[in-house]
Amino acid sequence: MSELTHFDASGAAHMVDVSDKAVTSRVATAAGWVKMAQETFDMITSGEAKKGDVIGVARLAGIMGAKKTPDLIPLCHPLPVTKVSVDLTPDPDLPGLRIEATVKTTGQTGVEMEALTAVSTCALTVYDMVKAADKGMEIGGIHVTLKDGGKSGRYEAG
Amino acid sequence: MSELTHFDASGAAHMVDVSDKAVTSRVATAAGWVKMAQETFDMITSGEAKKGDVIGVARLAGIMGAKKTPDLIPLCHPLPVTKVSVDLTPDPDLPGLRIEATVKTTGQTGVEMEALTAVSTCALTVYDMVKAADKGMEIGGIHVTLKDGGKSGRYEAG
Amino acid sequence: MSELTHFDASGAAHMVDVSDKAVTSRVATAAGWVKMAQETFDMITSGEAKKGDVIGVARLAGIMGAKKTPDLIPLCHPLPVTKVSVDLTPDPDLPGLRIEATVKTTGQTGVEMEALTAVSTCALTVYDMVKAADKGMEIGGIHVTLKDGGKSGRYEAG
Amino acid sequence: MSELTHFDASGAAHMVDVSDKAVTSRVATAAGWVKMAQETFDMITSGEAKKGDVIGVARLAGIMGAKKTPDLIPLCHPLPVTKVSVDLTPDPDLPGLRIEATVKTTGQTGVEMEALTAVSTCALTVYDMVKAADKGMEIGGIHVTLKDGGKSGRYEAG
Amino acid sequence: MSELTHFDASGAAHMVDVSDKAVTSRVATAAGWVKMAQETFDMITSGEAKKGDVIGVARLAGIMGAKKTPDLIPLCHPLPVTKVSVDLTPDPDLPGLRIEATVKTTGQTGVEMEALTAVSTCALTVYDMVKAADKGMEIGGIHVTLKDGGKSGRYEAG
Amino acid sequence: MSELTHFDASGAAHMVDVSDKAVTSRVATAAGWVKMAQETFDMITSGEAKKGDVIGVARLAGIMGAKKTPDLIPLCHPLPVTKVSVDLTPDPDLPGLRIEATVKTTGQTGVEMEALTAVSTCALTVYDMVKAADKGMEIGGIHVTLKDGGKSGRYEAG
Repeated sequence: MSELTHFDASGAAHMVDVSDKAVTSRVATAAGWVKMAQETFDMITSGEAKKGDVIGVARLAGIMGAKKTPDLIPLCHPLPVTKVSVDLTPDPDLPGLRIEATVKTTGQTGVEMEALTAVSTCALTVYDMVKAADKGMEIGGIHVTLKDGGKSGRYEAG
Repeated sequence: MSELTHFDASGAAHMVDVSDKAVTSRVATAAGWVKMAQETFDMITSGEAKKGDVIGVARLAGIMGAKKTPDLIPLCHPLPVTKVSVDLTPDPDLPGLRIEATVKTTGQTGVEMEALTAVSTCALTVYDMVKAADKGMEIGGIHVTLKDGGKSGRYEAG
Repeated sequence: MSELTHFDASGAAHMVDVSDKAVTSRVATAAGWVKMAQETFDMITSGEAKKGDVIGVARLAGIMGAKKTPDLIPLCHPLPVTKVSVDLTPDPDLPGLRIEATVKTTGQTGVEMEALTAVSTCALTVYDMVKAADKGMEIGGIHVTLKDGGKSGRYEAG
Repeated sequence: MSELTHFDASGAAHMVDVSDKAVTSRVATAAGWVKMAQETFDMITSGEAKKGDVIGVARLAGIMGAKKTPDLIPLCHPLPVTKVSVDLTPDPDLPGLRIEATVKTTGQTGVEMEALTAVSTCALTVYDMVKAADKGMEIGGIHVTLKDGGKSGRYEAG
Repeated sequence: MSELTHFDASGAAHMVDVSDKAVTSRVATAAGWVKMAQETFDMITSGEAKKGDVIGVARLAGIMGAKKTPDLIPLCHPLPVTKVSVDLTPDPDLPGLRIEATVKTTGQTGVEMEALTAVSTCALTVYDMVKAADKGMEIGGIHVTLKDGGKSGRYEAG
Repeated sequence: MSELTHFDASGAAHMVDVSDKAVTSRVATAAGWVKMAQETFDMITSGEAKKGDVIGVARLAGIMGAKKTPDLIPLCHPLPVTKVSVDLTPDPDLPGLRIEATVKTTGQTGVEMEALTAVSTCALTVYDMVKAADKGMEIGGIHVTLKDGGKSGRYEAG
């Protein structure tokens, strides 16, 4: 098992030195979901325009959230992300919304934290917009599904 | 079922008008967890000082995350939070870390989004610090456990 | 004519002391527009879903922009805004989009800067989303249309 | 006419993928103005030191505003800007202040949004500092005057 | 000697609960200095306009820095500051600039961290603007000179 | 003596154009200290776990502070820092804590402001956590100890 790279030999937290890592194309994808009551699900996925665009607002919050990653995660490197997309898909079996985010960069370290932060911020925003109707929603299943580019090679969730 | 308050009659998103709500003491608690491989769990919860203080760093990130809530969640009101605490507890049965956050304010609207954001940021930070050892971790179980103060009364997760 | 309150007697900039001003309900409205080529206007206001929701994204950016006002405007007081709404209306005579923002607070100073910042951020976001099609767009007409609450009384643009 | 690049084929907003664009020197210039009452204009452009340095404060706010562009504009890429300058010129015929901002980067996408945001933030700051004397000021004429570098070539306002 | 209030009984960091503290008028003043070479001092304090307004830029940075305090200091409460002023005074005996900042709020906790952050940000900005001429400058003497309002009473540096 | 590069020929502040500077590996180190009463020093450096991890929290605040440098210092360029470390060492002779920060980047301009901001934010955080016990602490000795990489060559404090 690898070491915990975010701590030095004495156990002190630090931002890992990536100065000598290659500038390469990197991509990461993360996923997650928001589970809700059946009637909440029906309300936000029905075609009635007057219910408002929960999915559109949450998607945008996820994209902006990716850009805030180095502000939120103490030891994350700031990175010039070159692409962010966030998809929300209604899943009647959950019932709820499934979220997937893809982030790319051309840089010296990976973007899986950006993808996870996009998913997480998107899910929180769904909760915020729907909470007046349903306080019992649950956010879960947040994990990295793909990471590629850079020295450690390709990772795909099993 | 209540309406989706974050949209006006035409379906346009807006920040809800809370100008006429009372300034009262409000509290919210949220919970969640990070599930990891057994050997990852052993590594971060063992007493060996050299592994670094994952829990201490993640707790602090959660506290600071609560303060960033109105930056992250588009329609959230900015609020002067008066208390934030974040607890991480190792759970060998998960295995992983259970997270609980409590936020208070004296204001015109509730702080459940702040508590959820604290939990979420804390969990992402655990992932960041441990990801070199374990990319397969999962974040889940994020939900509001308690909300009190304000007109809508006390809510406790069942 | 009033003095320039943002400077002290020696001409040094400062954040005005509002400690002794009353906490009252305050509201401000501002307006502005983005003028564009006729075919650009047709494209973003036509019903074709595939063109994307320019208005929805720009509205959300305006709401979030209002919350960033004290970060952007050096001598602005931070204020807990209690309501923000932003409306975009297609105007075929411009041709372009007319923007109006309303902000409320319960505080010690007015929110006209928040309303102006919402309009301005919303207009910039329209430009950003449409610029691949039309670089010649112009943003203008940004002014305060209403300010009320507080000692200086009600102001309405003539 | 070009497509709206900020939306995918289904109309969902995304941050455009610039991963494969060349890293080149890019520059953009934008302009705008703040129109005010004659006596307001006289006050802020007169040599009396005690009136305070409206132009100096607004210039600095514009420069800092350029750096906040990816925070404000939802689908903007974060970019390491390599130069920002903002000029304010009194124009007695307006009467008011004319603003021009120039931004450079060495990156994968253009900086016209940074230049427009600098002009806009500068204009809002002028309004803020002078509003105690003149609430009727208007901000307008905000447009891109020059954009160069990158694949789409040189653009100059007609 | 008082306890370290920022840690709970188990030693975990938290944001102190100030929910039950009174909302009162609070003020704090802090001071500090930047020491520099004699010729650097002469250059930035001479009347030659072409040298640029180091003091004006640094003052504004200090004021804006006060507003960023809860972003920078992990366990600081966000507070609606109601006044910030920063004064820079050339001191030929240092030689260098003496800085003093005053911050007020009407809130539930003190503003000494805001005053210290204003001084510190102002001093860093002086360093930034002058560093091309003098890398050996030193920032020091940063301390609280006055704190008043709230339960703990008036504090003045001896 | 060099010119003040942050001002143009007319004395107006601007962000220096670094577009034509080489992208090279750059490093900077800065130092400083927080001086406190003897009993305060004993309390935070004693082994009693219940006193809380002042040093761990302050170290993290320093690392995060480095990332906020372009937000705080008006004319600083945004830079993708590639490493940040902050060390705190108890010094019984002060008595107090000595702070040292090292920052690296691969970019077009130096990182001494990032190193200084890390030290400064770390010191302010120590003050915040200990202020309930000791309001008379002083922050000082903040200076650049090393700067290397880039055209101007290596600088070391004498």
